Amino acid sequence: MIIQLEPNITAEQKEGLKAQIASLKYKTNDVKTQMREYIIGIGKEKFDVRNIGHLPGIKDIHIVSDDYKLVSRKWKVNRTAIDLGDGVLIGDGHFAMMAGPCSIEGEENIEKTIQHLKENDIKIMRGGVYKPRSSPYSFRGMGIDGLKLWYKAARENGIKIVTEVMQVSQIAEMYDYVDIYQVGARNTQNFNLLDELGKVDKPVMIKRGISGTIDELLYSAEYVFAGGNERLLLCERGIRTYEKASRNTFDINAIPILKEKTHLPVIADPSHGVGIRDYVEPVALAATVAGADGVIFEIHEKPEKAFSDGQQTLDFEESAKLIRKMRALKELE
Amino acid sequence: MIIQLEPNITAEQKEGLKAQIASLKYKTNDVKTQMREYIIGIGKEKFDVRNIGHLPGIKDIHIVSDDYKLVSRKWKVNRTAIDLGDGVLIGDGHFAMMAGPCSIEGEENIEKTIQHLKENDIKIMRGGVYKPRSSPYSFRGMGIDGLKLWYKAARENGIKIVTEVMQVSQIAEMYDYVDIYQVGARNTQNFNLLDELGKVDKPVMIKRGISGTIDELLYSAEYVFAGGNERLLLCERGIRTYEKASRNTFDINAIPILKEKTHLPVIADPSHGVGIRDYVEPVALAATVAGADGVIFEIHEKPEKAFSDGQQTLDFEESAKLIRKMRALKELE
Amino acid sequence: MIIQLEPNITAEQKEGLKAQIASLKYKTNDVKTQMREYIIGIGKEKFDVRNIGHLPGIKDIHIVSDDYKLVSRKWKVNRTAIDLGDGVLIGDGHFAMMAGPCSIEGEENIEKTIQHLKENDIKIMRGGVYKPRSSPYSFRGMGIDGLKLWYKAARENGIKIVTEVMQVSQIAEMYDYVDIYQVGARNTQNFNLLDELGKVDKPVMIKRGISGTIDELLYSAEYVFAGGNERLLLCERGIRTYEKASRNTFDINAIPILKEKTHLPVIADPSHGVGIRDYVEPVALAATVAGADGVIFEIHEKPEKAFSDGQQTLDFEESAKLIRKMRALKELE
Amino acid sequence: MIIQLEPNITAEQKEGLKAQIASLKYKTNDVKTQMREYIIGIGKEKFDVRNIGHLPGIKDIHIVSDDYKLVSRKWKVNRTAIDLGDGVLIGDGHFAMMAGPCSIEGEENIEKTIQHLKENDIKIMRGGVYKPRSSPYSFRGMGIDGLKLWYKAARENGIKIVTEVMQVSQIAEMYDYVDIYQVGARNTQNFNLLDELGKVDKPVMIKRGISGTIDELLYSAEYVFAGGNERLLLCERGIRTYEKASRNTFDINAIPILKEKTHLPVIADPSHGVGIRDYVEPVALAATVAGADGVIFEIHEKPEKAFSDGQQTLDFEESAKLIRKMRALKELE
Repeated sequence: MIIQLEPNITAEQKEGLKAQIASLKYKTNDVKTQMREYIIGIGKEKFDVRNIGHLPGIKDIHIVSDDYKLVSRKWKVNRTAIDLGDGVLIGDGHFAMMAGPCSIEGEENIEKTIQHLKENDIKIMRGGVYKPRSSPYSFRGMGIDGLKLWYKAARENGIKIVTEVMQVSQIAEMYDYVDIYQVGARNTQNFNLLDELGKVDKPVMIKRGISGTIDELLYSAEYVFAGGNERLLLCERGIRTYEKASRNTFDINAIPILKEKTHLPVIADPSHGVGIRDYVEPVALAATVAGADGVIFEIHEKPEKAFSDGQQTLDFEESAKLIRKMRALKELE
Repeated sequence: MIIQLEPNITAEQKEGLKAQIASLKYKTNDVKTQMREYIIGIGKEKFDVRNIGHLPGIKDIHIVSDDYKLVSRKWKVNRTAIDLGDGVLIGDGHFAMMAGPCSIEGEENIEKTIQHLKENDIKIMRGGVYKPRSSPYSFRGMGIDGLKLWYKAARENGIKIVTEVMQVSQIAEMYDYVDIYQVGARNTQNFNLLDELGKVDKPVMIKRGISGTIDELLYSAEYVFAGGNERLLLCERGIRTYEKASRNTFDINAIPILKEKTHLPVIADPSHGVGIRDYVEPVALAATVAGADGVIFEIHEKPEKAFSDGQQTLDFEESAKLIRKMRALKELE
Repeated sequence: MIIQLEPNITAEQKEGLKAQIASLKYKTNDVKTQMREYIIGIGKEKFDVRNIGHLPGIKDIHIVSDDYKLVSRKWKVNRTAIDLGDGVLIGDGHFAMMAGPCSIEGEENIEKTIQHLKENDIKIMRGGVYKPRSSPYSFRGMGIDGLKLWYKAARENGIKIVTEVMQVSQIAEMYDYVDIYQVGARNTQNFNLLDELGKVDKPVMIKRGISGTIDELLYSAEYVFAGGNERLLLCERGIRTYEKASRNTFDINAIPILKEKTHLPVIADPSHGVGIRDYVEPVALAATVAGADGVIFEIHEKPEKAFSDGQQTLDFEESAKLIRKMRALKELE
Repeated sequence: MIIQLEPNITAEQKEGLKAQIASLKYKTNDVKTQMREYIIGIGKEKFDVRNIGHLPGIKDIHIVSDDYKLVSRKWKVNRTAIDLGDGVLIGDGHFAMMAGPCSIEGEENIEKTIQHLKENDIKIMRGGVYKPRSSPYSFRGMGIDGLKLWYKAARENGIKIVTEVMQVSQIAEMYDYVDIYQVGARNTQNFNLLDELGKVDKPVMIKRGISGTIDELLYSAEYVFAGGNERLLLCERGIRTYEKASRNTFDINAIPILKEKTHLPVIADPSHGVGIRDYVEPVALAATVAGADGVIFEIHEKPEKAFSDGQQTLDFEESAKLIRKMRALKELE
């Protein structure tokens, strides 16, 4: 049960409301986001809203049978759009393309990528400065200095930044230089990180876990939302299965299922979803027609020279072709 | 190694050729299909084709590094089209739509379905008369009598039939009444059935196993081809994973991967691939833009009354909408 | 619902009973095995047994909530033992070891294996004469002649034979030469084969499907049982997962779960379950203490020369050590 | 390549050694643990150790072909034992049993558990004070105050503590009160947490990821080791598969495979591995005979009243029986 409160509810009214809910054997959770204030009631018995509906300070009450609440479309039927400023929106009819290298590699790499994005009228650039790597001996990214370099070039060119945050201590450090914090597939259930991202007033894109279920992804989003941050995006990036002909199995089913279950925008990552350069385009197009609100994909001026993920990275010519095709599909709708 | 023979090769020339190949430590397999004659050479060492290229009776030689040979695109780069007669083609640019009930249920069901197909200019009808069922106590289909009823109505209306064959003894019995034999997901590695279907001069559509790999599907096709039947279609129908929000996980990656690996047409089955009625359309559209040569999907005049699979079956209105949308996507290409 | 009939029930009494059950909206299935006669009632509503309990000809009535019925332990709490004759029993306290080559390779191979089995007091020999192979170009086994050779040597030495049957037409052909028909992992849901094996009065061991669920395995057993054959064994042989460090993932959990769900004996196949020679012993011992009624494993006089599966095959020294260790564990109980 | 350095190597000698390795196109990584000092050389070309073997300051050189190095048994053939003090050892022949509630629930729960452990001569108690929960609205553990309560009671009774650490900031806070830090299955690839645990001089037990591979588990251990902490344990706790008859699929194969690949102790968690109370015992016994160095399992004075995981928790009677049976199996060896 989600109770949205009136902005002017008094502390006394709120306590009275919570006491009333508790008397009906429901546990209450206070949720105060940057936008609104809610009380989440959790309980097992049937709840008759007439028992509280007359109390002052309530704007709206929704019974939500899903185990996740605030991210559910049973509460909020209208789709959420995420506003990055400067007219860049994602979701609720705004299809977003985000492209860039796996790892930010340096000034030249940044400039060439931005140049390509501008030529193709793409507003959001992806790239990693903190890289989760299986081996402790691998390149782990340029870190905060790389992010600052990137930020400078991006701002000059009107480009927004989405990049992965790996730990709590990086949140503040990165704050001034990112437009969307990305939670990687290995951190989807890093609940402390999610808690802390709830306190930040910047959008967060959560990737599905390496073998995470759709419900677990929604729960992870619920963590950030309940922590205070409503500006969330979800990202399908392929799951781990027995099939070894591709790096991951892109779960195309997850796109329409997530769109049915949640009001949040759903982004597709075909680069990790299939993991093989030649197949990124068909998977990206598939996700587009299946209803994704955006696509994030890896590009590089010379994929074979990329620091990481070169085997799944498009060159600029392939990228331009994909962008044209996705736009043609969106125009058809 | 695939050696395609000249039609007029003499028995003596053929023996000489095989002896020469054997002397180079390659095992030979004779393959005589309804269309052509081949020798398949299997060996591990490097093979210099100049050692046999001069021999008489050879039309063409291809070194194929894949473990499957005749179905590989490394041998036959041009795409194969399957001709069902009366101008109905599948593959090599011919996009095929096949629709019908999960189980053939009787005359009324047949007539209503055919009526719907004709209204929407669909030429191929799917339906089961032999149904594999987990429980021995479930409805197992109308059998051969159902097929005969269906055949009569289909022929009168210019509709082709694709239906599942479950065992060797049914092949002959069904022969006069089917246009495409379907091998179900539980029989993908029923090698005896595949062997026997190699001897039949009707097209065969092989579904990917319930948790079959892409390579296993290609191997199964190789069985039928090596048995003598070149007219094959492959079908992606979702795989078994840990995710329970959908019946299966439709492997969208498999569409472009199969198209790269084989010259055979690749069909998508979104009904089984996602297993939930509301999501059949987006998955079908996704498969279409990802490069599938056709889509097979379940429809019923009243899905909630269907004998089986009602939860993933479209009604006629949904079906007509999907058909329109798929055609619009194909026209865009 | 399972109704066990009295042997002397009259046809008239039986019809009356079925009519009464049908009047209570339950579908009836006649099951007549080589041992007993049953009526299986399938329905969704609550069934009050007092409505039929007074009718003549009924020996026993059991309400079974599982979807499979005759193989359920909810009906038959006591464990089933399979009697192969000559004092060789499997299940209900009789722990069975079965060993032999992946493929029967010829007289010498048969003799050496039998010699090893006798030295170690093992009564059942495994081996394939019909081999399911992914590639049509691979060795497919010695066939019926190999089986006859094997049978002759086995009978002379008091050894029982378990071997795979791949298709309906082989059942009769193999009948005189086998003690247990094995249904392989690729045929677990070959329902026609299961139907036909129901008509045979020899034990059948059904392997779990390559990615079969525990429930699907029980359903497959229900097919054979409902077809008339009560003498069944189930075999856990590892499932397909994402982990590639082993050939399959042996599902140790399945052993106690199956033992809880069914009265049939449960056999473990550690050779396929892990697929790597060095680890066959620990997995076999694990299955033994987890409650398996027997273990089937691959051995060869020279594993590195075996026609197939050499990488998971024990030599005779390793086999003897494993046998000693399993016996020590059984003595501890 | 692992180069173990002499304790008295000079800074100059070390630089010379690293320069020499770099000149051979190998990247060097300095690793200084609480026990020893190493240089890890990473490169692709063949390396002739004679090129550096004569340099001063080298104690030992090992070429390790695995991608993980320091945790590999190719370097350190002898098994590692973890010493918790007071004669409590794990590994290298010391079989460890660890038991306790899923969540620490309060003083009474702590006392009853400790009482049971003492009666059964168990030296290590498990329990969670920080609980990763899918839903933000669930109980998340008693936190540091619970740990302090627990520590006090444990120390008075000579019991060691193993408990999960979820984030970097908890490491220092928990330091005085834990004997083994546990990294949970959702944090196996939380590389920042692993990095920081490398700096701590307390043992760390790393659980396999929810769908982690065996190699990924070894890599995660390599992170901690390379960070400076050699005192590591690995824990198999079941993996996510399609099978839903159990909570997870306990990967029994992983026990002998890990024991072959690494010198670190391998612990089994049958409680999470199967997730159903009745089957915890057989899985625990299976892991014991398969070669595990220890077993960690959940117990509670009243499982049906436990705050979490009650369905997989043994009561004290079941626990005592399991302990007796595991000891009997170990005595047999």
